[in-house]
Amino acid sequence: MSSVLGNKLKLSVFGESHGAAIGCVIDGMPAGIKLDFDEINREMARRAPGKDKTATARKENDMPHILSGLLNGVTTGAPLAMIIENTNTKSGDYGNLMTVPRPGHSDYPAYVKYGGNNDIRGGGHFSGRLTAPVVFAGSVAKQILKNQGIQIGAHISKIGNVCDCPFDKNNISEDMLAQLAKKSFAVINSSKEQEMRDFVEKARLGGDSAGGVIECAVTGMPAGIGGNMFDTVESRLSAALFGVPAVKGVQFGAGFDFAEMLGSEANDAYEVCNGGVHTLSNHNGGILGGMTNGAPIVFSAVVKPTPSISKPQKSVNLQKMENEMLVVSGRHDPCIVPRAVPVIEAVTAFVLLDLMM
Amino acid sequence: MSSVLGNKLKLSVFGESHGAAIGCVIDGMPAGIKLDFDEINREMARRAPGKDKTATARKENDMPHILSGLLNGVTTGAPLAMIIENTNTKSGDYGNLMTVPRPGHSDYPAYVKYGGNNDIRGGGHFSGRLTAPVVFAGSVAKQILKNQGIQIGAHISKIGNVCDCPFDKNNISEDMLAQLAKKSFAVINSSKEQEMRDFVEKARLGGDSAGGVIECAVTGMPAGIGGNMFDTVESRLSAALFGVPAVKGVQFGAGFDFAEMLGSEANDAYEVCNGGVHTLSNHNGGILGGMTNGAPIVFSAVVKPTPSISKPQKSVNLQKMENEMLVVSGRHDPCIVPRAVPVIEAVTAFVLLDLMM
Amino acid sequence: MSSVLGNKLKLSVFGESHGAAIGCVIDGMPAGIKLDFDEINREMARRAPGKDKTATARKENDMPHILSGLLNGVTTGAPLAMIIENTNTKSGDYGNLMTVPRPGHSDYPAYVKYGGNNDIRGGGHFSGRLTAPVVFAGSVAKQILKNQGIQIGAHISKIGNVCDCPFDKNNISEDMLAQLAKKSFAVINSSKEQEMRDFVEKARLGGDSAGGVIECAVTGMPAGIGGNMFDTVESRLSAALFGVPAVKGVQFGAGFDFAEMLGSEANDAYEVCNGGVHTLSNHNGGILGGMTNGAPIVFSAVVKPTPSISKPQKSVNLQKMENEMLVVSGRHDPCIVPRAVPVIEAVTAFVLLDLMM
Amino acid sequence: MSSVLGNKLKLSVFGESHGAAIGCVIDGMPAGIKLDFDEINREMARRAPGKDKTATARKENDMPHILSGLLNGVTTGAPLAMIIENTNTKSGDYGNLMTVPRPGHSDYPAYVKYGGNNDIRGGGHFSGRLTAPVVFAGSVAKQILKNQGIQIGAHISKIGNVCDCPFDKNNISEDMLAQLAKKSFAVINSSKEQEMRDFVEKARLGGDSAGGVIECAVTGMPAGIGGNMFDTVESRLSAALFGVPAVKGVQFGAGFDFAEMLGSEANDAYEVCNGGVHTLSNHNGGILGGMTNGAPIVFSAVVKPTPSISKPQKSVNLQKMENEMLVVSGRHDPCIVPRAVPVIEAVTAFVLLDLMM
Repeated sequence: MSSVLGNKLKLSVFGESHGAAIGCVIDGMPAGIKLDFDEINREMARRAPGKDKTATARKENDMPHILSGLLNGVTTGAPLAMIIENTNTKSGDYGNLMTVPRPGHSDYPAYVKYGGNNDIRGGGHFSGRLTAPVVFAGSVAKQILKNQGIQIGAHISKIGNVCDCPFDKNNISEDMLAQLAKKSFAVINSSKEQEMRDFVEKARLGGDSAGGVIECAVTGMPAGIGGNMFDTVESRLSAALFGVPAVKGVQFGAGFDFAEMLGSEANDAYEVCNGGVHTLSNHNGGILGGMTNGAPIVFSAVVKPTPSISKPQKSVNLQKMENEMLVVSGRHDPCIVPRAVPVIEAVTAFVLLDLMM
Repeated sequence: MSSVLGNKLKLSVFGESHGAAIGCVIDGMPAGIKLDFDEINREMARRAPGKDKTATARKENDMPHILSGLLNGVTTGAPLAMIIENTNTKSGDYGNLMTVPRPGHSDYPAYVKYGGNNDIRGGGHFSGRLTAPVVFAGSVAKQILKNQGIQIGAHISKIGNVCDCPFDKNNISEDMLAQLAKKSFAVINSSKEQEMRDFVEKARLGGDSAGGVIECAVTGMPAGIGGNMFDTVESRLSAALFGVPAVKGVQFGAGFDFAEMLGSEANDAYEVCNGGVHTLSNHNGGILGGMTNGAPIVFSAVVKPTPSISKPQKSVNLQKMENEMLVVSGRHDPCIVPRAVPVIEAVTAFVLLDLMM
Repeated sequence: MSSVLGNKLKLSVFGESHGAAIGCVIDGMPAGIKLDFDEINREMARRAPGKDKTATARKENDMPHILSGLLNGVTTGAPLAMIIENTNTKSGDYGNLMTVPRPGHSDYPAYVKYGGNNDIRGGGHFSGRLTAPVVFAGSVAKQILKNQGIQIGAHISKIGNVCDCPFDKNNISEDMLAQLAKKSFAVINSSKEQEMRDFVEKARLGGDSAGGVIECAVTGMPAGIGGNMFDTVESRLSAALFGVPAVKGVQFGAGFDFAEMLGSEANDAYEVCNGGVHTLSNHNGGILGGMTNGAPIVFSAVVKPTPSISKPQKSVNLQKMENEMLVVSGRHDPCIVPRAVPVIEAVTAFVLLDLMM
Repeated sequence: MSSVLGNKLKLSVFGESHGAAIGCVIDGMPAGIKLDFDEINREMARRAPGKDKTATARKENDMPHILSGLLNGVTTGAPLAMIIENTNTKSGDYGNLMTVPRPGHSDYPAYVKYGGNNDIRGGGHFSGRLTAPVVFAGSVAKQILKNQGIQIGAHISKIGNVCDCPFDKNNISEDMLAQLAKKSFAVINSSKEQEMRDFVEKARLGGDSAGGVIECAVTGMPAGIGGNMFDTVESRLSAALFGVPAVKGVQFGAGFDFAEMLGSEANDAYEVCNGGVHTLSNHNGGILGGMTNGAPIVFSAVVKPTPSISKPQKSVNLQKMENEMLVVSGRHDPCIVPRAVPVIEAVTAFVLLDLMM
């Protein structure tokens, strides 16, 4: 029952969508790291809503306010605590949800678990807004990893039935990852952007929503990182990725395509290259036996369509225990995938930094 | 760097394929549980090799020998420790692997991580044989869960391009799960068994191997189980599932198919039924917001083709740092999927019991 | 390297003495608990400085500001986050400590550990001020425990060579504990208060400081709580108690006096009483084999004299690496013991609640 | 509820006094460590009973049998698993304890906790015999620490009212620690040995038992090791030390004597010495603010008199719920202190190695 992530580095996330503030504490921070707040703000902006029609028009003030762990812009080694105040909240929109759970949302199981005491306004602690502190923590982690030559980037590989080009798993340049980070709609093949947007817009006009897949890559990881049986790189990453709201599947390398491959197709052969050991392909996504093998880490995560839709839906009135049609009003993202890209990168960065410490 | 799984209940797995013994310790066992050893042995037999041509002809003595935590067949509350002695090991088969890592295996990253000190005979601690203690622990967990009305079952949903019928996610009977557990080749649609076997046999004759997908279901879970952000049911299950050798992807409910669904298709509407709240569909696989919603938990995991193949493969000689062709001899499973079915069930059982405690 | 305490309930404390704010996050909070803020404020006031000459004249605004986890005064089950803003800080007082570590303080090891990046103003994260969020968390825990019939109280059992009457370990009334909580100088034998104050005042006038011992009791604990070997009640409590600044020893029941006792004197005999099992004495402080036995938990913790004294002390200049006399100025507590009483109670409450969950 | 110790390095201890075997698994072992089994056996022998009249005449075969994690005497990086078979057990001696709990023992709380299912023969999992695997693990840890220049040694500082000379806390030689390790009755002042033995023998002849204090020192620890608030060196060590059966108090440096000291007496002044920073005294036992300061770590732990005594004691019959006199027969240690010395050292070594990793 925990909003805490990590072993040596511990991220504790708190807040509720319509509470006083959201934020996080990063315990175990190394001392002496100069943080680049322009970079942090750029990352926060990537996740922020309100930029275009794929996202909610709701504006959020995502400016992180540091409470501790930083002196003159340099980490002190004490826990790094940050809050973001909640300012633009319209609680009235959620008045009827106390009794009628939204299908596809956490409402019903949270009602059972918390005995009706959880703050349901805006999804409470389950709100996607809670990913803002995660992006903050990820941005801090990215800066430390970058100093070690490790770079992380992701793109929208699919929305609806529209696919972007996949990463060339064994040949991913840092430059490509840097370019993707600058895009507000991160696709490799720019011509796919409009197709994806059209798909989302069509869903939105129909009072509906769209899902998609995000593919993420990590370059510069040394070989031999990761643990034994239950502490594999895949275990650590997947546990964190399934903490991102709406993620329902995670696959590494060829992932579910492995089912149709033969061993001779799936194995990544080795060769000596520049005095080091390299793989000739990267079907395993940079991870073998749960450990990094020096090839880029490549995985993808599926994001289900936002459950908040304006179409009427069948639900139940939990007080009266009878069926009731539900119409969800309010401002919602018709497709959360573009905004989830930096969140996926953030948890990846945090987990890998924790593993490297 | 850990072969330890769990929070309140801790499974510590030890052993190496060609060492004196493998085994496990389950710390935090509740006291007063009468264990059914016939049931444990049936589960161990489901995982055991040597039954047919899909698996290695190697015989393993998988008889668990209890060292502590049990008195007159009833758990005492002290750690439950178990060993399985290694008897049938042919170390000679692996003589050349010290210097030439097998593609697709843990060999190379383990070489880097352990500085060449790891026991590479039979894969050492990374051997699939280490799943035997996991099945033991899972069988113990299953017995406790069954007393609480929770049942777990899995089937081979795909091998190569041959698919079994998927679970009807919102309508899974305990009887069906019980029937699957009795099959040495667990498919729902029996007519698919031979097709799958043919696919594997063809791979085997070609000196190759096959992969597949396992679908697993859990019935009887109460709603409201599972944690906040980073301690979701999906996080816990996936972390354990990626600890099963060769698993490279995990998806819950509709999984990667969510990408092409609209919100109105993906949401599971509610209705009142027999005085309780039920979902009309189960695309979310029984989990919303990281918590159980009372519907069956349904997920699938992809198992990559066994990396041990007899076809010659490109590799490198780590001593000479030059390219070298590798031919792996010895007895190997052309397809590990059928034997992985009880392992997937086992980690699922262990994780859920830990969550319920 | 962690300011995180607890297993199922996790307390993450953050802040630095002269930073923007201090605070904490309690992850894993049960939902539906109505918090009594009058009670919380009373507890905060017990710890607050500035009340008399035994403590620093520095005023601190210890008003906790809740950020999340509470709705209409009732816990929501989401992480309970709280901050206290730092307002009254005089950074100038500490200017010279960057280079000359104060003997008896964390300064020197922190300088080595954090490479000189830690915030040394006011002790930074090592400041006694960080016990304010701990008292907040403890007050929350106490309220939940009280609903279960468990009460915690402590007194100053010794300052310098002046001793208070010890608890009658096997006969501690809730009323006595309640009376102690109302005293700003918590002694059982009121006549000892002035003697203790005189001892402290004499030390203060001499530019020196005094230490002491705090004895703590817990009534109402059921028998059979606590864990096996390394998860004993004593292990859990001591680990948290040694997290309270200046605590240098912890003993349960007869503690170090056990060395001179015979087994027949140390054993607590049993008798049947009111249909239950009771001990005739309580030398073991309510804990046997690491588990509670139903008798009150009784332990004591020694608090060393505050290292901040105005007498000149030998130290070293870390920049020049040469010896240098140090005179510490600023406002300091000549005796921290009275203010440490609610802190000792607080960590005790938090640990026991975590154990009971 | 855990017999698991450690964070990065995890020790899982299992076994019951009269079960098939006891043992442990050390997860997270570094690879490439050559273990000296002569040294391990010497350490095991220090703990073994049957050497003289202060201990039980019961002989135990404490030969550790390695199951995994070691190849050609060198650690592989896989979990290091070890068992010791139980051979010399007389279960008949304990027949009556099922219903009448021994005062001072874990019997009654364990009965409550485990609902009467725990193995009470010989104390079951609570038996002092379970410290044998702990000594094994400690011996492994000591060897690794020694390679880093860290040495651990302890002596009997008190039995009954007879005191040994204490360590000169700021001046402890490795040679002295090495000498102590060779003694079966570890005292600094040899003339005290006979006095202590006389005290124990007198207790034994009276059907009684004696307790004592063990003082332990660690030399060679670098400064700056240890964590923030709740992860101090004292927290980690005390948590493990209270896992040693019969330990009821732990104090660091001057410990409870701090209560009577003034700040000017308690503070350890600094001086520059050989280009480094040294303390002129070591009242703080090498730990400040929870971190090492480079001085020797010095602490002591009190061991209560063995609760197993042959004198008749008042107890209760848990079946009939009526008072009943109890006479404990069987072979018991009149004083466990001498045998506890290597156990105290062992947990210290394990904790410090875990902290250093």
